[in-house]
Amino acid sequence: MKTVREEELNALAARALEGLGMLRPDAADAARILVLGDLFGVHTHGVSRLESYAQRMKGGGTRARPAIRIERVAPAIARLDGDRGVGPLVGMRALDEAMSMARELGTGIVFARNSNHFGAIGPYNYLAAEAGFASIIGSNSSTTIAPHGGRDARVGNSPLGFGVPRPGGRPIILDMAISVVARAKIRDALKAGRPIPDTWATDREGRPTTDPQAALDGFLLPMGGYKGYGLALIVDLFAGLLSGAAYLTHVQTWIDAPAAPQDLGHFFFLIDTARLGSPAWLAERMDDFANILHSTPRADPAKPVLLPGEMEMDRLERHRREGVAIDEDLLEKLAAYARGG
Amino acid sequence: MKTVREEELNALAARALEGLGMLRPDAADAARILVLGDLFGVHTHGVSRLESYAQRMKGGGTRARPAIRIERVAPAIARLDGDRGVGPLVGMRALDEAMSMARELGTGIVFARNSNHFGAIGPYNYLAAEAGFASIIGSNSSTTIAPHGGRDARVGNSPLGFGVPRPGGRPIILDMAISVVARAKIRDALKAGRPIPDTWATDREGRPTTDPQAALDGFLLPMGGYKGYGLALIVDLFAGLLSGAAYLTHVQTWIDAPAAPQDLGHFFFLIDTARLGSPAWLAERMDDFANILHSTPRADPAKPVLLPGEMEMDRLERHRREGVAIDEDLLEKLAAYARGG
Repeated sequence: MKTVREEELNALAARALEGLGMLRPDAADAARILVLGDLFGVHTHGVSRLESYAQRMKGGGTRARPAIRIERVAPAIARLDGDRGVGPLVGMRALDEAMSMARELGTGIVFARNSNHFGAIGPYNYLAAEAGFASIIGSNSSTTIAPHGGRDARVGNSPLGFGVPRPGGRPIILDMAISVVARAKIRDALKAGRPIPDTWATDREGRPTTDPQAALDGFLLPMGGYKGYGLALIVDLFAGLLSGAAYLTHVQTWIDAPAAPQDLGHFFFLIDTARLGSPAWLAERMDDFANILHSTPRADPAKPVLLPGEMEMDRLERHRREGVAIDEDLLEKLAAYARGG
Repeated sequence: MKTVREEELNALAARALEGLGMLRPDAADAARILVLGDLFGVHTHGVSRLESYAQRMKGGGTRARPAIRIERVAPAIARLDGDRGVGPLVGMRALDEAMSMARELGTGIVFARNSNHFGAIGPYNYLAAEAGFASIIGSNSSTTIAPHGGRDARVGNSPLGFGVPRPGGRPIILDMAISVVARAKIRDALKAGRPIPDTWATDREGRPTTDPQAALDGFLLPMGGYKGYGLALIVDLFAGLLSGAAYLTHVQTWIDAPAAPQDLGHFFFLIDTARLGSPAWLAERMDDFANILHSTPRADPAKPVLLPGEMEMDRLERHRREGVAIDEDLLEKLAAYARGG
């Protein structure tokens, strides 16, 4: 591992994307989202993703120089066609458009289609919050969850993110996928030879299982049973169906079909909090809200009560101060992409 | 039980609210939401609520003739002051304003404060969907949930509802509270002398429990652990904090303080789907979406795979055809309210 400063990692990731064929300003925008993923400590959605992005660009499923088109279908609604661009570029263009509508009208929503994996959601909520916008942002994804009562993967583990700014302080950010756990946690249990709780996944017949291998052959379970199933569908309805993108089983997995367009969809809904009250008004309420929660008596004296996103904000501040540790092989790969390799 | 037709129940509930002092058009609007609750089969949020509404109006916590004020703080944001009106009246005024903004601009959001219990959320999502609007609607509520890792009730079991229209067919509606189960289910277990799953609630020390009495003395658990906790906070941030209403422990319980204003908050975010495509375009995609899910192989051959809200839509259609069964004592009470009693 090597410790890298934020500016350095931004520059390296941007040069890598440029080496893969992207235009300089596009590369810089897309790099920012991935680097924020690393700074939040979500390394699975950080610059390590550039490897799969590179494969997809070389395979043709993703375009390095997309002709992204934005159409205002109503004063406060835009539809964006990502033209198969890398997801974080499409996401940043959508976020910019949503900010511009919300600044003008108070709120605005952007529906994006023809996109790809767009990184973690938290970084978008964070950028929106830093500019004073509350946000609800979602994306659909390829299918890994069986419908409640079904035994076939027809629902994506679609991520959903929320952010509320706290002027002068840390925003509250909730970035969640719908499954109880990520597949990676089940793979870890398999490696360790441990059983899993029967609430994590079902076998391929749709029956809850404690066997990690059966779970990997089966389907992830959504949190909260039918509630989580419903929530996953709602995210897909907004991000996929209403946006004009693919949805449910129409979403291609980039692993099975690296050269095919994945046609993922996202939505970005923003609210300009400055229209609701002054920054001092909002800061006072947000501080009070945080204090009520932080001062709750603890169930376990060693474990503080936290707000959503608080651990990520801790890591962001630390990584900005001290740099972030990145795998040296990965850094070497990024340097090779930057050289056009 | 007596079977009552929708029109008859609407008229009776409206006359009851008028008898309690409300103006005729206000009473008719508020009645509609409660009656839809009964038609959806959610009788806990139907006309039976008129009893507590009557108590609150008599106690002064709720005003029969509020001066509801709506301020457009931006072209696509309205703030509504409910002036302590009954919740379903405040909710209907907020829904109307959100529809009017979304019709004009594509989307709009209304933040309501100074409100009370506003019935089930599904009826609002349903009315929005029938008029062509996709919706995200939420309300905060008094606190019954401990923060993740805490042992004091500082978070409301705030309901959140989503709706997407399906032109010519049934909308998809997800109306969910954040807790794994309602307190009523724990009371049922206590009466039946049954233990409860340890995922439903904690005792008053914040430790998971299977004892229903300890659970009733303790706190409801949110679905999905910290994800549900986060979601409950987000609903309160949008419905309570951003709206200018009370939030978290500032929300009064109407049971403990029947004469005090509860100052609940709601938000209504609507999108005019007509701006995204024709009704035929939307109907085709929604039908396909439903078919993909309905055709999923079943885990249990006897149990079909359903869409969110499908059971409620079944009941709505049946109750509209055949009438809905309402407790005769309750009907007598409504008649007494209508006579000014």
